[in-house]
Amino acid sequence: MTTTDGASDDRLERQLEFIRELDRLKSVLRRTSLIDRSRLENSAEHSWHLTAMALTLFEYAPAGAEVARVVEMLIVHDIVEIDAGDTFAFDAAANADKIDRESRAAARIFGLLPADVGRELRARWDEFEAGETPSARFANALDRLQGLIVNDAARDGGTWRLHGVTRSQVIKRMSPIVEGAPKLWPVVLDAVARCVAAGQIADE
Amino acid sequence: MTTTDGASDDRLERQLEFIRELDRLKSVLRRTSLIDRSRLENSAEHSWHLTAMALTLFEYAPAGAEVARVVEMLIVHDIVEIDAGDTFAFDAAANADKIDRESRAAARIFGLLPADVGRELRARWDEFEAGETPSARFANALDRLQGLIVNDAARDGGTWRLHGVTRSQVIKRMSPIVEGAPKLWPVVLDAVARCVAAGQIADE
Repeated sequence: MTTTDGASDDRLERQLEFIRELDRLKSVLRRTSLIDRSRLENSAEHSWHLTAMALTLFEYAPAGAEVARVVEMLIVHDIVEIDAGDTFAFDAAANADKIDRESRAAARIFGLLPADVGRELRARWDEFEAGETPSARFANALDRLQGLIVNDAARDGGTWRLHGVTRSQVIKRMSPIVEGAPKLWPVVLDAVARCVAAGQIADE
Repeated sequence: MTTTDGASDDRLERQLEFIRELDRLKSVLRRTSLIDRSRLENSAEHSWHLTAMALTLFEYAPAGAEVARVVEMLIVHDIVEIDAGDTFAFDAAANADKIDRESRAAARIFGLLPADVGRELRARWDEFEAGETPSARFANALDRLQGLIVNDAARDGGTWRLHGVTRSQVIKRMSPIVEGAPKLWPVVLDAVARCVAAGQIADE
């Protein structure tokens, strides 16, 4: 059966099924809380926050980055967590099989879509994961920076403190910002210094 | 004080303050629940869902729409709810002063930013609200459609049923889709018919 303009109902139904599937990302919880500490942040609202950061901070992107591409990558970058879950940055064991788990998730979830649309969105996710283009480097930098901004503002450091995360671990985690948004690196150093002084991050 | 490249710290600090302020949108609750009915949806994750819908369904946008512009409008379209709250579509009293409340909110929240960035993001919000450009019409259509898709899939109709919302009220609410995404209008009619049959929407 086709609609009046010739588009197949099956094509549209696959797009709608993907959209319904995305609703589940709202239930994937991250380790960071909201700034008001009322609850943990989920990956859907985190993704939105990153897209708004991209529009706000784009002047600090490296040469060659394109804002529309950055935003598209940020929209899809966590979709795989619907199957693979959020992997805590400082959990070495969970990070060992992260690539496998997320690749299987990408195949299934982007595979819900008509092939052409699925290929396009999957390409954005691949570009983000590879982190090689200026747009992908900036998107990755924002992803790291957002957690730091929220943790710093929450004056809590709950997860860091709970897991005894150290200053050098956080700095290493933030290191993609050095290349992806070098002008924002002072923001990282300021926030880390504040969090160490407040006992939220362990000093070595 | 200026950083090495001449950007003022004050400029960047205003951008960071805006980003921290945005965190509050994660606590603004809508009347729709998640598809799994576990809780109400918030406006931040709703905004993300819309941006993903824009990428998925852009082939159904009217001529002249630009995907990047649509996405930017959807990122900022609910930010005013940080001050003004989510206004229930079928609450006539609350809708009477909605424009005033949201305009004050826009002035304050976009006013946190350096003037040039604030003007640009505010312009996206104004364009969405005016609903006159092809991009804005598509963005508004998606905003209406998302609530219907989620309510339909949740097989609940909680808010509609609670407030005795009727078929013709829902159809009227969805009418921006006729112009903003005409090829998706059959999706509306199908979903409404299903919801009426299931007793989620009152038949006249």
